[in-house]
Amino acid sequence: MVYKYIDIVGTSNTDITDAVNNAFQEASKTVKNIKWGELGRITFRVEDGRKMEYQTEVRIGFEILREDRK
Amino acid sequence: MVYKYIDIVGTSNTDITDAVNNAFQEASKTVKNIKWGELGRITFRVEDGRKMEYQTEVRIGFEILREDRK
Amino acid sequence: MVYKYIDIVGTSNTDITDAVNNAFQEASKTVKNIKWGELGRITFRVEDGRKMEYQTEVRIGFEILREDRK
Amino acid sequence: MVYKYIDIVGTSNTDITDAVNNAFQEASKTVKNIKWGELGRITFRVEDGRKMEYQTEVRIGFEILREDRK
Amino acid sequence: MVYKYIDIVGTSNTDITDAVNNAFQEASKTVKNIKWGELGRITFRVEDGRKMEYQTEVRIGFEILREDRK
Amino acid sequence: MVYKYIDIVGTSNTDITDAVNNAFQEASKTVKNIKWGELGRITFRVEDGRKMEYQTEVRIGFEILREDRK
Amino acid sequence: MVYKYIDIVGTSNTDITDAVNNAFQEASKTVKNIKWGELGRITFRVEDGRKMEYQTEVRIGFEILREDRK
Amino acid sequence: MVYKYIDIVGTSNTDITDAVNNAFQEASKTVKNIKWGELGRITFRVEDGRKMEYQTEVRIGFEILREDRK
Amino acid sequence: MVYKYIDIVGTSNTDITDAVNNAFQEASKTVKNIKWGELGRITFRVEDGRKMEYQTEVRIGFEILREDRK
Amino acid sequence: MVYKYIDIVGTSNTDITDAVNNAFQEASKTVKNIKWGELGRITFRVEDGRKMEYQTEVRIGFEILREDRK
Amino acid sequence: MVYKYIDIVGTSNTDITDAVNNAFQEASKTVKNIKWGELGRITFRVEDGRKMEYQTEVRIGFEILREDRK
Amino acid sequence: MVYKYIDIVGTSNTDITDAVNNAFQEASKTVKNIKWGELGRITFRVEDGRKMEYQTEVRIGFEILREDRK
Repeated sequence: MVYKYIDIVGTSNTDITDAVNNAFQEASKTVKNIKWGELGRITFRVEDGRKMEYQTEVRIGFEILREDRK
Repeated sequence: MVYKYIDIVGTSNTDITDAVNNAFQEASKTVKNIKWGELGRITFRVEDGRKMEYQTEVRIGFEILREDRK
Repeated sequence: MVYKYIDIVGTSNTDITDAVNNAFQEASKTVKNIKWGELGRITFRVEDGRKMEYQTEVRIGFEILREDRK
Repeated sequence: MVYKYIDIVGTSNTDITDAVNNAFQEASKTVKNIKWGELGRITFRVEDGRKMEYQTEVRIGFEILREDRK
Repeated sequence: MVYKYIDIVGTSNTDITDAVNNAFQEASKTVKNIKWGELGRITFRVEDGRKMEYQTEVRIGFEILREDRK
Repeated sequence: MVYKYIDIVGTSNTDITDAVNNAFQEASKTVKNIKWGELGRITFRVEDGRKMEYQTEVRIGFEILREDRK
Repeated sequence: MVYKYIDIVGTSNTDITDAVNNAFQEASKTVKNIKWGELGRITFRVEDGRKMEYQTEVRIGFEILREDRK
Repeated sequence: MVYKYIDIVGTSNTDITDAVNNAFQEASKTVKNIKWGELGRITFRVEDGRKMEYQTEVRIGFEILREDRK
Repeated sequence: MVYKYIDIVGTSNTDITDAVNNAFQEASKTVKNIKWGELGRITFRVEDGRKMEYQTEVRIGFEILREDRK
Repeated sequence: MVYKYIDIVGTSNTDITDAVNNAFQEASKTVKNIKWGELGRITFRVEDGRKMEYQTEVRIGFEILREDRK
Repeated sequence: MVYKYIDIVGTSNTDITDAVNNAFQEASKTVKNIKWGELGRITFRVEDGRKMEYQTEVRIGFEILREDRK
Repeated sequence: MVYKYIDIVGTSNTDITDAVNNAFQEASKTVKNIKWGELGRITFRVEDGRKMEYQTEVRIGFEILREDRK
């Protein structure tokens, strides 16, 4: 088996867990056979004095299947 | 005073904080006098395209009391 | 433009995200023009066997405007 | 010259070096002009009490040639 | 919003900043909506006793817009 | 599910992979339900000018089942 | 002797060294007796496809003299 | 040979070295065949404005002998 | 509760612990309600071949009480 | 006793362990009383699409004996 | 092939790249067959309120040829 | 100015500071113009259940003067 990583930053206005979910869902649209994820840096952006969004770096690991390879 | 660490991985299907709580509760069953905890790596596991569980490494610090030592 | 960092530890009895929000709100009371934040160590404190509070180190970045400088 | 990185996880049931080779061979199928690689985390997975496979994170560096760019 | 990272190594025979610019310009050819970059390892390669080129690892963050996703 | 870590140092006179296997086998004698392992520092010891043994730090993750808890 | 640190982010549209100088000059306006500095993360911000500014985190060390303390 | 690690936090009101010794002595009560130790984080706790105790994280390595295994 | 960090470098001609104490005492003059400290880099400065002073980076954590905020 | 470190990069076309052995043997030619070694970064170099050699950074620790000092 | 590392700190009053060049040129005077370099910590020293010099730690890798070994 | 690093491990049976002093004194015998030092890993070795010696890794920085270069 061979796996590959991509690095996604998910965002959410409400919650850290929600931002991670958001990154996972985005990754699901472009790669198949996701097996695990790992949280990296957690930051937030502020605009006009209000915390606008959480940003969570997520490293996504997915299996490369024979038929997927291009 | 002397303290000791154990490393537990808590899991939760819903939330990162919940996974940390889960690790703390499990640790509470085997060691007494827990004083603090520290979050390590946060990962999640995926099965059949669905995010199954958050996994949070938690380092638990507890005091070693005289009567506890074995 | 020039930015500066301060390091705040927010706390919450319920949730990690809530502790980060708490750090941000405290920082907002003393500095203006906050632009971003970054999460550091996440710990929790235990007393009498109950998890008392989450503690989240948050590094706050804010812009130093001309009229603010002292 | 410009180089790019991709992150691959190679696996092997027998040997760490073999798992790295496996990652390199997989990468060779999708990118040309590989110039170097660097080993990251080395883990292994266990199933039913038997060590099933070594997993080696390998960061692959390859040169982007003019005609390759898309 | 969702962001993604790619890792590029820019090179220059003259200057570190120039190598970073080089990485940014190369990235601009393949991804749109770049929002930020972060410098990683800085190395240089030597041939026949002369310093040949600076190599700067640059992590590029770009926004994934709806119409871009493939 | 809850997992726990123990840290073992395996040794071998011949090979790094062999030292990791050795750590895994030792861990298997004292804990059940091992799920994964991760390699830490790799060192070797020298005596009288001969390399005596490889030492590999291995972090072992195992599941805590209900009936196992003590 | 006692020293203290403050963390400043300098920016520049042209050059990394220039951004560090900028951080140093800003720090010079608010603290006296600066003795050394150390470069942290180097990032850049992009707007509308153009690299807008380099941002360099700089940790400034300065001596606390008797008469300065407040 | 196989070694194992445990993580102890020693404390002392007077001196960092003393806190490390304290961790070593506590570890000696519960494990035999200690071979080496390594210092981790060094912190101190303050109460009512007075520095109460140094806390030194110490990782203890000991050999697992045949007869010790349980 | 909210805590804040400041970073101080204490020095001593005789001893590492003494340099940490020195940092703590200096911090005590400018902030109230110090709760903990953590040791960072330990360096020493040499002049004319004699080791002149130990320098210990210490991160000081203190509680921000309502009446202290400015 | 006093020890000193040198940093060697060993190479091998076949195996990671072999590259470490290679570094150790080279070090043995220039320093006496080697006591231990520690593996650093593991990389490999590729030429014309074939993995040419493993490169292992090895930090070698050796004792400085009285008669050796120069 | 076998390589070795030495660690040099280059300095410059004007520019970070210049300080790296300076380290490389100094290293070139004492070792032959330099193959690569890697930048470490970047600091600057201040005297009388003026930034005096940039200091760049540079790790130099060079090949040990048969005839060079001593 | 150009500086160079060497890495020494000092030892002491009594105290961490003493082990650092020991490393500095040993370095003073072989290099001139030492300017600073930095503490690395702190370990201790145990024999027959008694803590035998503290070992402190110390990185020594010294200036390379014109007349010293060889």
